[in-house]
Amino acid sequence: MSVRAAVMPGPGMPLEIREFPDPTPEEGEVILDTLASEVCGTDVHLWHGRLDGVPYPIIPGHVSVGRIRELRGVEADVLGRPLAPGDPVTFLDVHGTCHRCFHCQVASQPNRCPSRRVYGITFPLDDGLLGGWSQAIRLLAGVQILKLPESVPADRLIGGGCGLFTGFAAVERSDLRMGATVLVQGTGPVGLSAVAFARLRGAGQILAIGDPDARLALARRFGADVTLSLAATTREERRERILALTDGRGVDVAIEAAGQPSAVEEGLALLRDGGSYVVAGHYTDTGSATLNPHTLLNRKHVALRGQWGTDLRHLVGALRMLERHGDALPFEEVIGGRYGLDRVQEALEDVEALRVTKAVVVPEDG
Amino acid sequence: MSVRAAVMPGPGMPLEIREFPDPTPEEGEVILDTLASEVCGTDVHLWHGRLDGVPYPIIPGHVSVGRIRELRGVEADVLGRPLAPGDPVTFLDVHGTCHRCFHCQVASQPNRCPSRRVYGITFPLDDGLLGGWSQAIRLLAGVQILKLPESVPADRLIGGGCGLFTGFAAVERSDLRMGATVLVQGTGPVGLSAVAFARLRGAGQILAIGDPDARLALARRFGADVTLSLAATTREERRERILALTDGRGVDVAIEAAGQPSAVEEGLALLRDGGSYVVAGHYTDTGSATLNPHTLLNRKHVALRGQWGTDLRHLVGALRMLERHGDALPFEEVIGGRYGLDRVQEALEDVEALRVTKAVVVPEDG
Amino acid sequence: MSVRAAVMPGPGMPLEIREFPDPTPEEGEVILDTLASEVCGTDVHLWHGRLDGVPYPIIPGHVSVGRIRELRGVEADVLGRPLAPGDPVTFLDVHGTCHRCFHCQVASQPNRCPSRRVYGITFPLDDGLLGGWSQAIRLLAGVQILKLPESVPADRLIGGGCGLFTGFAAVERSDLRMGATVLVQGTGPVGLSAVAFARLRGAGQILAIGDPDARLALARRFGADVTLSLAATTREERRERILALTDGRGVDVAIEAAGQPSAVEEGLALLRDGGSYVVAGHYTDTGSATLNPHTLLNRKHVALRGQWGTDLRHLVGALRMLERHGDALPFEEVIGGRYGLDRVQEALEDVEALRVTKAVVVPEDG
Amino acid sequence: MSVRAAVMPGPGMPLEIREFPDPTPEEGEVILDTLASEVCGTDVHLWHGRLDGVPYPIIPGHVSVGRIRELRGVEADVLGRPLAPGDPVTFLDVHGTCHRCFHCQVASQPNRCPSRRVYGITFPLDDGLLGGWSQAIRLLAGVQILKLPESVPADRLIGGGCGLFTGFAAVERSDLRMGATVLVQGTGPVGLSAVAFARLRGAGQILAIGDPDARLALARRFGADVTLSLAATTREERRERILALTDGRGVDVAIEAAGQPSAVEEGLALLRDGGSYVVAGHYTDTGSATLNPHTLLNRKHVALRGQWGTDLRHLVGALRMLERHGDALPFEEVIGGRYGLDRVQEALEDVEALRVTKAVVVPEDG
Repeated sequence: MSVRAAVMPGPGMPLEIREFPDPTPEEGEVILDTLASEVCGTDVHLWHGRLDGVPYPIIPGHVSVGRIRELRGVEADVLGRPLAPGDPVTFLDVHGTCHRCFHCQVASQPNRCPSRRVYGITFPLDDGLLGGWSQAIRLLAGVQILKLPESVPADRLIGGGCGLFTGFAAVERSDLRMGATVLVQGTGPVGLSAVAFARLRGAGQILAIGDPDARLALARRFGADVTLSLAATTREERRERILALTDGRGVDVAIEAAGQPSAVEEGLALLRDGGSYVVAGHYTDTGSATLNPHTLLNRKHVALRGQWGTDLRHLVGALRMLERHGDALPFEEVIGGRYGLDRVQEALEDVEALRVTKAVVVPEDG
Repeated sequence: MSVRAAVMPGPGMPLEIREFPDPTPEEGEVILDTLASEVCGTDVHLWHGRLDGVPYPIIPGHVSVGRIRELRGVEADVLGRPLAPGDPVTFLDVHGTCHRCFHCQVASQPNRCPSRRVYGITFPLDDGLLGGWSQAIRLLAGVQILKLPESVPADRLIGGGCGLFTGFAAVERSDLRMGATVLVQGTGPVGLSAVAFARLRGAGQILAIGDPDARLALARRFGADVTLSLAATTREERRERILALTDGRGVDVAIEAAGQPSAVEEGLALLRDGGSYVVAGHYTDTGSATLNPHTLLNRKHVALRGQWGTDLRHLVGALRMLERHGDALPFEEVIGGRYGLDRVQEALEDVEALRVTKAVVVPEDG
Repeated sequence: MSVRAAVMPGPGMPLEIREFPDPTPEEGEVILDTLASEVCGTDVHLWHGRLDGVPYPIIPGHVSVGRIRELRGVEADVLGRPLAPGDPVTFLDVHGTCHRCFHCQVASQPNRCPSRRVYGITFPLDDGLLGGWSQAIRLLAGVQILKLPESVPADRLIGGGCGLFTGFAAVERSDLRMGATVLVQGTGPVGLSAVAFARLRGAGQILAIGDPDARLALARRFGADVTLSLAATTREERRERILALTDGRGVDVAIEAAGQPSAVEEGLALLRDGGSYVVAGHYTDTGSATLNPHTLLNRKHVALRGQWGTDLRHLVGALRMLERHGDALPFEEVIGGRYGLDRVQEALEDVEALRVTKAVVVPEDG
Repeated sequence: MSVRAAVMPGPGMPLEIREFPDPTPEEGEVILDTLASEVCGTDVHLWHGRLDGVPYPIIPGHVSVGRIRELRGVEADVLGRPLAPGDPVTFLDVHGTCHRCFHCQVASQPNRCPSRRVYGITFPLDDGLLGGWSQAIRLLAGVQILKLPESVPADRLIGGGCGLFTGFAAVERSDLRMGATVLVQGTGPVGLSAVAFARLRGAGQILAIGDPDARLALARRFGADVTLSLAATTREERRERILALTDGRGVDVAIEAAGQPSAVEEGLALLRDGGSYVVAGHYTDTGSATLNPHTLLNRKHVALRGQWGTDLRHLVGALRMLERHGDALPFEEVIGGRYGLDRVQEALEDVEALRVTKAVVVPEDG
C-alpha cells in the first residue's frame, strides 16, 4: 500500500503528486486518514517563496481534519477524552516548542520559541507526512490532538481554517465589553471569523469594511449589522457613516484583518477615545503605515494589541464554540471550492485570485 | 390635577395609596409618567424593615420605565441622544454620589459613596415622587437617563428589573473566556439574567442549579443547557453530574445568585482549579458559610470576586444588549403578575411566597 | 488688601502683573495663599497660542501648592482628612467634569468630558483667580483637594509638577512585572518621573535615552542603570547596546516620554516580542511616525497604550508614594530656577530654551 | 569516589546518611555540587507523612543552589546565558510537566499537571540524586536552570527559599497599585518575602501581623512600617489600629501567609471595600474558616485570589529582583542555622519548634 501527497518542490515550481510508503506510527504517534485540509493565504505566500526559512520540498496544509487510522501509546486527547481508530480529530499545527526557553516559560509566548515547527510549513519532506495535502498525516509524539465533537462537521472547521482560530484569538484579545460596537476591517477568513466571534461574545453593533460583495454578504450572514464596501465608498464616507452609527464617538473596538497598512491608520481614526484596537491581519509585510502619535495614540488613550499566532487555548475555545454555537458559525458556507490532490495547483491559483474565499483540499477525492 | 402613589409608611405596616399634587420640574429635572416599575426581593426586605437607614415613609420602586411628561433644561440622555416629551426612558436608580470622595474618585466604586441615594429605597417622601410605584416620577437634576430604543419594549426591561443589571455585571466580572463552561447557582431574576448574559457573552456549556420547576424551565429558555433541581437532587448527585459534564475537572466559571451561604461552599467545590467565581446573590445577610481555605481557595488557585451594585456602565451595556439581542433576553416572559397601585400589597406577598418570579407595578392600571 | 497675579493676555503678548481684590470664598470654596506653582511645557505652548479653545486672558499655572487661607463649608479633603486654615494642600487641576456623560460614566475617561476645565489653562480671567501664578488661588466648590503630608515638602511636589503625575500614570498603565527591564525614552519631567516610578514599582533594569548630560545625570539619580545620549550615539549603537543588556531580546517595557514621532518607531523596535509600550509624550502634535504593522505591531504581539491626562487616582497614588518613598523621588533637585511673579516671562523663556528642567513660580517672592 | 546524601526512609523514621556512587550525566543532564539547600515547613510535613503520594524513601530538599560539576549537551540556561563547569546555578524544583494536557496548555496552570514531579518531594530514591540534601544533585534533561548572577550570594537566595518565590507570586497576583496600603498576615518565610516584594513593587504603607518578636523585627527590616503581635494584641485592637492607619477604610490589599483559617476571616474584615486579598499561606489543611458571604464577599465587592505554587516566571522575576535590589532583600539574615548533612534531623526539629525562621542544609559541611 502507498499514500499520495501533494509536494511543493520549491518557490514558484509547480506542485507535484508523489507516492509514499504507508506510514507506521512510532511510540506516541498517531496516523490520520486525511478528511480535509485548508488552503490559506500563507500557502500562496509559500508558493511564491515569500516566507523565510522554509525547508523545501514540503507537503503544504497546516490546519487539517482526519480520521484516526492507527495510534501507538496514545490514549486520550488534550482534554482527556479517549481516542480510538475511526475518531475524527484535528490538531494544533504548531509542534516542537521546547517548553523551557524564555519565550515558552517566562514570556508565555511559545509562538516565538526558536524550536517551534509548523505542520505544512516548516517540516521538510524527509521527516515524513507532516502536512495536510496528503492522504495520510503523521502526528509526531506530543502533537496536541483534539477529538472533533459529533456535532461539528469537518467542513465547518476547515471552512474556517486557521483564520477561524486567528479571529477567535483577536476577539479574545480585544477585551470587548458586552454591548460594545465592534468594527472589523477585512472580510476574508480572519475577518469573517472575527465578525462571528464578536457577535457570539456579546458585541452590540457590528460593522465590517471589506470587499467584494460576496464576502460582504457572508459578513452579514456571520453577524455584521452593517457592511461597507471599500470599492464603493470613500474613506470620508465610511467615517461619516460610522460616526452616525456611534453617537458621533467612533467604535469601542476595532479589529484589523485587512492586511493593508492604510487600514491601521483608518481603524485607529475610527476608534472612540479609550477604545481597543487589535492588529491581526499583518502576517506578511505589506509596507509601512503613517500614524500620528498625538492624535491616534496618545490623546486617544488607545489600547492597541498585536495578535500573532494562536495556541491550544484558542483551538480548544474555538472548538467548544463550534460545538455549542455551530449555527452561528456556518463556515462550511465559506468554502468556495473543494479540490482533490490533482487540483491543488488550481486551488492555489483560485485563492490568489480571490475567486474563492476558502479553498479546501480533499485528498481522497483525487 | 393630582397623582396617586403607593406609600410604605414603615416596617410591617400596610401600604397606602396617597394623592400628591402634580409635580413640576425645577431646572435640570424631568417628570415621567410611569409605565412600569418592578417589585424585587429588596422591596420585601424593605417592608419587613430588614435594611438599615431607610427614611420611612417612602415610595418604593427602584427600577422603572416611564414616558417623559415634562423636562426643564435637559436636552439629551447620557449617550447624547435628544430627549423630548413622550419619549420612553429608564434611569439609574442610584443618584447623588458626590463624585469627589475616595470611593467615587480613587477606588472607582461610587456604590460605596456615603452621599449616594437610591430611588425607591433611601429617599424620604418629603423629597417628592422619588420611587416608581407612583403615577409620576420626579427625576432630580443629574439623574442619569437613558432613552429606551424603539425595539426594547418596557416589559422586557422591567421583567428583568434590577436583576437584569446585576446578572449583566456578574457575567462581566467573571472574566469568562469564550467556550467556558459556566455554572449559575440560583434561578431567580439575577440567576436568569446571568444565564442569559453568559450565553450571549460566549459561554460554551451553561449549567444552572435552582428551583422550582417553572424557574428551571425559564433557565433553559434563557440558555441553560442543563438544569438541576435543588429539591430533586442531593449535593453529591449534582457534583457527579457536573464532573461528568466537564471531563472530570469542574466548571471554568461559577456565578452565585442563590443567596444561601451553603451555595458558596458548593459553588467553590464545583469549580475547576484556576476557575473564576462571582458572588452576586448575597444582598442581604443570611448567615455564614464554612469554607476550607486550603482546598477551596489556596490549592484551587481560585479567583473569587464579589459583585455589589451596578453603575451606569452596566445599565448602558444591558440596554445595548436588549436592543441588539432582544430575542435572547425575553424577560417579559418572567413577569408573573402585573399589579395596579391598588394591589401592590398583594404583589409584595406574591413575590415573598415565590408565587411569581417577577412582579410588575403598573400605576396607570390602578 | 489686594492680590497680585501674572496674566497672559493673549498668544505672543508679554505677561503682565495685575492687582485683584482679595478673594472671598463662596459656599464650598477654599482660598489658598500660593506657595509655588509650576511652569511646564504646556505653558510655553499656551504662550505661543498652540492650544485650541483657550479663553485668553488667563492666569497660567495648573499644578500648584498653597496654604489654606480661608474655607467655607469644606471640612475634609478627598481622603476624609480634616482641613483647616494654615494647612498646605494641592488639588487636581481638572475641574468641572459633569459626572454623567458617556465619557465620565460609561467609558471611565473624564479627561474627555466636554464640560471639563483646567486650572491655569481653560478658565477665563473673569471667573476669578483660577491659576497658580497668583498670590492667591480660588478653589471652586467641588475641586478635589489633597492635604500635603508633613513629610512632603512643597518643592518636592512642584519640582515634579504635572510630569510627576503623568509619569506615575504611564508606569501604572505599562503593567510592568517585577524584574522587568524598562526603557524610558526622554529625560524631561515626564521621563524622569517614569524612571523614578518604574524603579519604585519593581523594575529590574532601567535604561533611559535622552539629553542633555545634566538630564541624563538626573535620570541616573532617579534610578536609571544605564543612560544613552541621543546626541552622542546613533540609533544603531543604541540598539546594539540595549540588545546586549537584554540577552538579545529587547526590553520588556518601554515608555515614550520624548514627544518625537521617530521615538515611537525606535521604541517599538527596541521592545521584545510580547512587550508593553506606553505612549505618554505626545501631548502636542509634532507630526507623524512611520510604522510597519507587520514587524512592529502584529508579529511583535505588542501591547501599546496611550496615556492621556491624569485623574485623582494618580494624584492620590503619587502623593502616597512621595509620603512613603520621598528619598527616591527627590524632585526638588530638578528645579532649575525659582521665579517671583515679576520674572514669569523669564521663566517661560528659560523652559523653552531648555536652560532649566523645571521652573517654579513663587508668587510671594515677587 | 562517592557522594553522601540524607535520606528520609519513611514517615516518622529518622533520617539516614547514605553513600551513593558518583553520578554521571546522561544527554541533556547536569550534575551539581550542592552549595546549599533549604529546610522548609513542607519538609516537616513530609517527615510526619502529611502529604499524599510521596514515594519514600526520598532525598529531601527542593530549593537548592549548586555549582556545575559536569554538563552534557546543555549549553545555556533558560535566559540563554552560557553555562560552564564552576558556575553557580539554581533551578525550578518542579519538573516533568507534560506541556500538552489541559492544565499545562489550556488553563495555563502547569502546577496541576498530573505528570508534574518536584525535586526533594515526589522523586523516589531509585531515580537518583533528585533532592538537595545531598553533596550532588542530578538535573534531569529539561530541568529549568538559572545561572546565579555574581551579585547574588547563594545564602541570599536560600535564606528566602521557596517562600521567596511564593511571596513574590502572591504580591504579583495581588495586583497592587502604587501607594496602596498592604497588610501581610504572617511573618514566616512567605510573609517576610511578601513584605519585601510589596515594598519593592510600590506599596505605600505596609502593615504586618505575626509573631514572635524576632520575626516582627525581621518584618520591619524587610519593609513593614507597622508590626502587630498576635500574642500581644486582641483582634479588636488590631482592627482599631489598622482602621486608624487607613483613614477608617481598611487596607487596599491583604496577603495571607499565616496558614490559619481564622486569619482569612480577619484579613477579609480588615480589607477596604473593593480591596484585593491573596490567600497564599494554606499549603496544608488546617481546618475551615467561617465567612459571611454578605459582609465579607458580596457587599465588600472583594477580589480574592488563591496562589498555589510558582513557576519559572516567578523564579526568573525573583532572581532579577535579587540581582537589582539585593539590599532590600537581605534574606541571608533570616537564616537561623546552617546544618551539615549529619545534623539534618536537628534542622527539621528546629524548624518545627520555630527555633529558627529558616534552616539551611550545607552538605559540604557534614
